[in-house]
Amino acid sequence: MAAPLHETEHREPDARRYARLSDPFPMWRGGALHGAQIAYETWGKLNAARDNAVLLFTGLSPSAHAASSAEDPRDGWWQRMLGPGLAIDTDRFFVLCVNSLGSCFGSTGPASIDPATGRAYRLSFPDLAVEDIARAGYEVARSLGIQRVDTVMGPSLGGMVVLAYAALFPGAARRLVSISGTLAASPFAIALRSIQREAITGDPDWRHGNYPADRPPRAGLSLARKLGTVTYRSAAEWQQRFDRQPVRPDLRRNEPFGAEFAVQGYLESQARRWVNAFDANCYLYLSRAMDRFDVGAHGDPAAALGRAGLEQALVIGVESDLLFSIAEQGAVARALQSGGAATRFAPLQCIEGHDSFLVDIERFGRELRAFLD
Amino acid sequence: MAAPLHETEHREPDARRYARLSDPFPMWRGGALHGAQIAYETWGKLNAARDNAVLLFTGLSPSAHAASSAEDPRDGWWQRMLGPGLAIDTDRFFVLCVNSLGSCFGSTGPASIDPATGRAYRLSFPDLAVEDIARAGYEVARSLGIQRVDTVMGPSLGGMVVLAYAALFPGAARRLVSISGTLAASPFAIALRSIQREAITGDPDWRHGNYPADRPPRAGLSLARKLGTVTYRSAAEWQQRFDRQPVRPDLRRNEPFGAEFAVQGYLESQARRWVNAFDANCYLYLSRAMDRFDVGAHGDPAAALGRAGLEQALVIGVESDLLFSIAEQGAVARALQSGGAATRFAPLQCIEGHDSFLVDIERFGRELRAFLD
Repeated sequence: MAAPLHETEHREPDARRYARLSDPFPMWRGGALHGAQIAYETWGKLNAARDNAVLLFTGLSPSAHAASSAEDPRDGWWQRMLGPGLAIDTDRFFVLCVNSLGSCFGSTGPASIDPATGRAYRLSFPDLAVEDIARAGYEVARSLGIQRVDTVMGPSLGGMVVLAYAALFPGAARRLVSISGTLAASPFAIALRSIQREAITGDPDWRHGNYPADRPPRAGLSLARKLGTVTYRSAAEWQQRFDRQPVRPDLRRNEPFGAEFAVQGYLESQARRWVNAFDANCYLYLSRAMDRFDVGAHGDPAAALGRAGLEQALVIGVESDLLFSIAEQGAVARALQSGGAATRFAPLQCIEGHDSFLVDIERFGRELRAFLD
Repeated sequence: MAAPLHETEHREPDARRYARLSDPFPMWRGGALHGAQIAYETWGKLNAARDNAVLLFTGLSPSAHAASSAEDPRDGWWQRMLGPGLAIDTDRFFVLCVNSLGSCFGSTGPASIDPATGRAYRLSFPDLAVEDIARAGYEVARSLGIQRVDTVMGPSLGGMVVLAYAALFPGAARRLVSISGTLAASPFAIALRSIQREAITGDPDWRHGNYPADRPPRAGLSLARKLGTVTYRSAAEWQQRFDRQPVRPDLRRNEPFGAEFAVQGYLESQARRWVNAFDANCYLYLSRAMDRFDVGAHGDPAAALGRAGLEQALVIGVESDLLFSIAEQGAVARALQSGGAATRFAPLQCIEGHDSFLVDIERFGRELRAFLD
């Protein structure tokens, strides 16, 4: 659910700040937003020169809550990576994590109220592009007086966003870290994401985007998340982790063809959490934006990325990633190098697939720490 | 659709024969069938010694029509592999392909009429196991006077069935060929198949299995087939084949979040064909049977397979197979070898994923021809 709809109902810890975007905010594929905002969180202190910022974009589904803080002590999605003395050292860097434009954790998206109508945008939200997410993050940094971030960084969707950021904003970052991203969505990833979207749009409860807040397209969201979970991990990991163990009794559904194996229970528990946390229309917009992303829209990739004037870049990818193949990571690294950034390419042997950056903190942390030092 | 329901409506070419199964036919996990039959097709001639038979089991969805014949000149699912002078040489072998028990192309399955009630079994069909499919094929061979086949062979689901056949019927095959099968379904494959099943059972048109013939759960079947298609191929193949080409106009659906890329059109065309060809309940039973398959249910795999008394075995697998990993192929080969069969393991470098056996006829044909000669 979009935070603006519900934020007065709960008094949960909340470390979010909000930045107003330019009004109108021009969208990359046409149209504009009015009165749009971005939710963000920060850790560490911006120095006097305002040159120690790490701008962090997220994957498709996380919020800006990357790590705990005094205002929100709950664990964040990159809890063990980001903090005092950790790989992304908040004793040294001012870290700024933005909730993507189009998402539903405080930033403006399809679940937000359209000020022109007083009702939620839903499918009247303009086409969303990865470039719009990049521009929104850029504006947040500017709103804090930061002309040039030390490092722009992102995993997955965020790995696409940082490339759009480089192509769009010359001189706006000194360094760049792309983690399991790509220069352009591959047909295999497009296929998998489009099936997830069809699971949602094919659910009668979706109602062409007009579902009531208390009755989202749960079956479709659940299916989409289960498939997403498969694409985020790997066969080798699950062989070790689940093998053919039976499902936990509380995750067995009492219905024909219900879950029998532990791996099915794992999918079910992942889906249950997500269905209640993420807005269906926001998911559809963000997912399609990923499919459409192609650095080539900005010209030759090396030339487009070269316009950023980056000093250094780090590209990390994982051999077992089904969704953003290791070959794609190599292509990102080559384009950055050709564009003039001193680029390190780190192909890692993790077995956790696309999600390795969330799980294998040791391997990823070592690379990030070495690069940022 | 099950052929018995419709076979009088069409006068399409038909090379099927039918074998009655033993009555009662005991099911591996309990229950029994009465009056059950198996549809099969044959090519070549059974010799006087009745020792030149190749018994061919299929993957999940094909019929017994593996290749054309005088009675049915339409191309079969393994058209270029099976015929006079081809890798499986019907000038030399009597090839017998069976439609799996539980399927819907002439063999008894959930879409067939239960003689006890005069109505389709649907979900009252007893639990189906890979072992039941093996037993049904074994009985078809016996019905033709064949005590021991020269070679029992199968790809995918068929690659599981041949292992069940070996474990259940000592002396019933001289040789065995397992193509992209496994000793036991992996958690990754279980996850992917269970999501496909949930796409069907979550479609309101499924009606707990009680859909009318003219209104099957099309949306669920379509989703399931699209996901199946992804798991049957590979990212590298699709990069070459589709890249980011736009969808063909006739495959674009005029709806929000409809197909934009060629790969989505490919999935759509695959799904449209399949939705009209395969019964949903049959799919659910066969898919679940694959998840449950574990040679370990027959004891130590090497010992279980050793009981077959095989002289030789061939195991073919593909490096790019997402669903039945190359590691699993190696495990099948080691178990057969330990069980006493002189075993050749052929890991192939095809890029077409699990479906390579249908596509890369040259590489697979070379292996099969060398083995059978």
